[in-house]
Amino acid sequence: MSTAILKAAPIHFGPFIVTTQVFHLTPQTYALVNLKPILPGHVLVSPRRVVPRVSDLTATETADLFLTVRRVARLVERVYGASSLNIAIQDGADAGQSVPHVHAHVIPRRAADLESRGGVDVVYEILESEEGDLGRILSEREGEEQGQGQGQGANGGRRRFPKVDNEERRARSLEEMEAEASMLMREMEKLGDD
Amino acid sequence: MSTAILKAAPIHFGPFIVTTQVFHLTPQTYALVNLKPILPGHVLVSPRRVVPRVSDLTATETADLFLTVRRVARLVERVYGASSLNIAIQDGADAGQSVPHVHAHVIPRRAADLESRGGVDVVYEILESEEGDLGRILSEREGEEQGQGQGQGANGGRRRFPKVDNEERRARSLEEMEAEASMLMREMEKLGDD
Repeated sequence: MSTAILKAAPIHFGPFIVTTQVFHLTPQTYALVNLKPILPGHVLVSPRRVVPRVSDLTATETADLFLTVRRVARLVERVYGASSLNIAIQDGADAGQSVPHVHAHVIPRRAADLESRGGVDVVYEILESEEGDLGRILSEREGEEQGQGQGQGANGGRRRFPKVDNEERRARSLEEMEAEASMLMREMEKLGDD
Repeated sequence: MSTAILKAAPIHFGPFIVTTQVFHLTPQTYALVNLKPILPGHVLVSPRRVVPRVSDLTATETADLFLTVRRVARLVERVYGASSLNIAIQDGADAGQSVPHVHAHVIPRRAADLESRGGVDVVYEILESEEGDLGRILSEREGEEQGQGQGQGANGGRRRFPKVDNEERRARSLEEMEAEASMLMREMEKLGDD
């Protein structure tokens, strides 16, 4: 079934509705674009069911999530002209998780892509910094207090990394995100099953 | 079939034989202990087939790998008294991969466990530093030049993070790793299928 048809129902990322930012749906998994991608093509893959931990997933959800990660990863690597990928899950607040909904970060990488900002591994610092997560920024945008409790300890940790310059990453407009989601949706639908 | 029986054949991690450090085997996936775990219970999960990229995995291998990650993650979180987990894959040299064999890092986390070393997210810097990978250290131990070519760019990047003190992480003896692998193997075999 095509993603467009499946998107009849609203799609949740933690407490947020992200339907228009979703570019790929399976019956149990979705992929969405990011408000402030660390690098071009930085996307998230989540189970449709809102659960905080990987261990909360059923076997079927787990397999579907990572088969989707693999397909999406292949796609964004190609579409964004990358040569490698970081795949990372912060599974629980004490690992830096901010939104209590399982999500795998998929980040296309190219040789020396972060050279000017500190080298290949600075991606993790940016990922972990205040602005790494769509959810946290959506929350700010909506003027909400996050107040989930679960993320507070982790936020304390993240604030220790002021050296990464996130200011140059501007928050994208909803239109811009939707345009990228549409482009990626078309690309996904061109792919055969594999 | 039990892990002990399956271990009749040698198990490879890239160019290395790691059979005695393996604590869990499925027909397509294995989990092994680490020479210098970043935190107690830091283990690796790999496909048995030596392939460099996630996109090289078949659908069956992908599902089996991540179902194994989920089971192993649950186990080490419980056994090591943790509350969260980092799950991370460097998929390709430009993402920091050093051994050209798919491996997921599973790192149990506890509140404030890395507070004295820089906070919750310093785990990534350590992961990415010179001593994060069993393979790189095995290579040094064997007195080999790594010379894989593929890892060289990444190593250049990693050397930018001298601020993380890895010196306090001592390389464990083979006996110590085997004892941990035996303990974890017994714990895995106590688990039912889920």
